[in-house]
Amino acid sequence: MRIGIVGLGLIGGSLGLDLRSLGHEIFGVSRQPKTCEIALQRGVVDQASVDLLLLAKTEVIFVCTPLGAIQSTVEQLVPYLQPEVVLTDVGSVKAAIAQKILPFWGNFVPGHPMAGTAETGIEAAQSRLFAGKPYVLTPTDKTPPASVQVVADLVKSLSATLYQCSPAAHDRAVSLISHLPVMVSASLIATCLQEPDPETLLLAQQLASSGFRDTSRVGGGNPELGRMMAEYNQAEVLRSLHGYRQTLDRLIDSIETQNWSAIEQTLRQNQQARPQFLNPM
Amino acid sequence: MRIGIVGLGLIGGSLGLDLRSLGHEIFGVSRQPKTCEIALQRGVVDQASVDLLLLAKTEVIFVCTPLGAIQSTVEQLVPYLQPEVVLTDVGSVKAAIAQKILPFWGNFVPGHPMAGTAETGIEAAQSRLFAGKPYVLTPTDKTPPASVQVVADLVKSLSATLYQCSPAAHDRAVSLISHLPVMVSASLIATCLQEPDPETLLLAQQLASSGFRDTSRVGGGNPELGRMMAEYNQAEVLRSLHGYRQTLDRLIDSIETQNWSAIEQTLRQNQQARPQFLNPM
Repeated sequence: MRIGIVGLGLIGGSLGLDLRSLGHEIFGVSRQPKTCEIALQRGVVDQASVDLLLLAKTEVIFVCTPLGAIQSTVEQLVPYLQPEVVLTDVGSVKAAIAQKILPFWGNFVPGHPMAGTAETGIEAAQSRLFAGKPYVLTPTDKTPPASVQVVADLVKSLSATLYQCSPAAHDRAVSLISHLPVMVSASLIATCLQEPDPETLLLAQQLASSGFRDTSRVGGGNPELGRMMAEYNQAEVLRSLHGYRQTLDRLIDSIETQNWSAIEQTLRQNQQARPQFLNPM
Repeated sequence: MRIGIVGLGLIGGSLGLDLRSLGHEIFGVSRQPKTCEIALQRGVVDQASVDLLLLAKTEVIFVCTPLGAIQSTVEQLVPYLQPEVVLTDVGSVKAAIAQKILPFWGNFVPGHPMAGTAETGIEAAQSRLFAGKPYVLTPTDKTPPASVQVVADLVKSLSATLYQCSPAAHDRAVSLISHLPVMVSASLIATCLQEPDPETLLLAQQLASSGFRDTSRVGGGNPELGRMMAEYNQAEVLRSLHGYRQTLDRLIDSIETQNWSAIEQTLRQNQQARPQFLNPM
């Protein structure tokens, strides 16, 4: 197939590497000429350009820009497209994106690969990034089933584990296991930074070890991405945060009332249940 | 030196491996005969026993039991000890432990190595576990300086980074970067488990990836340890949790009022500040 990719970062670049190695012809567009150059050098794409015109003859296009740029990218892209072209995206929120894109392009299959690394950018692109990882497609009632099938087949060819659900179901589940962790982790770092006693803060920095490192990782990550999660998935993120606050209040209450067995019971349930959330890496 | 270790788990076992390789004679005590056997086989100790009498001729003793067993261990140990013996422990809370132990043994140097792995037990013991990691000693006004020096020299011989502060300063700093992460992370898992819709919960489990894995790690760990942190460091853990709750409430308020730039600013400050908490692993 002739496949277009707009946005040649970690996800777009990794898609290019895998899809090209499967024999597809890959056309990549980035705003940065330097990124186009690297994508060609690294074998991520067959052709690259800063001009969306390059995608005029593609059959499927992956929009791999940040969440906030998906709509404007599609608006700019539409004049170049034949009506049968299938668009898909990789944004971490789906209902808001589907709502924004469908008026411009009905042949749109909202998608979300649950894959990432601590690194970003074309330099971080890697083969088989999606292998064994969940990749969700969230067609709406109006998405043509044949278009879903086209994207689903490509996803399966990446050795990803395909899931399909509504945009709303996706956003609710992901608010719990992806967006809530960012907010919880961000609040942890922010709490430490608000420590009023400078000696305590310095000692905390000196003594912080792997527990802090892991718990603070996603809350110390890309600020734009965290903001976009909250902005594009506001209702579900708030629902998760309110649930979290209730849980936290119960924990605080248990500690205040010295109900140690309640704390141990919660921790024991956590320890037993956590493996069900640990998919193969 | 003749060094005793009570409790041959990850920390006690790793201390034995390093101190023995430095030429000390190591006497290990575990409640489990099987653990004594493995400790001898793995070269963690020169002699091992289930009987504290084995430690009668040692000069320094590391008490490496769980927090809740430190006091009773010392009480049982005292009848066997010459008055000049230096006791130290490795518990993650220091003021409550110092208060419990000092009436029984004045020659006590409270300690806390900030080292650990996801694994526990004698099988997980490893050489150089403490190298490059913080190791805090928290003498009180009454701790003999010569005893502090003895333990400090041993800590430095492990290539650990030695810090010294009061038990109260330790407990406050550690509540922020070690105990608070456990409570925050535990509340994250518990919130997911309270999801009332089974389909959402299942999808959340299926889609959970590295962000959830890292943020939930310490909250899905040893339940007794988490409970002990809260119980033995109650006041400081509550202080940290109340600070955290305020931070969380501000974040929720920013999302409710769509103050996206406030969220992005917090995340940007986090991203800039987090490296100051990342000691070499």
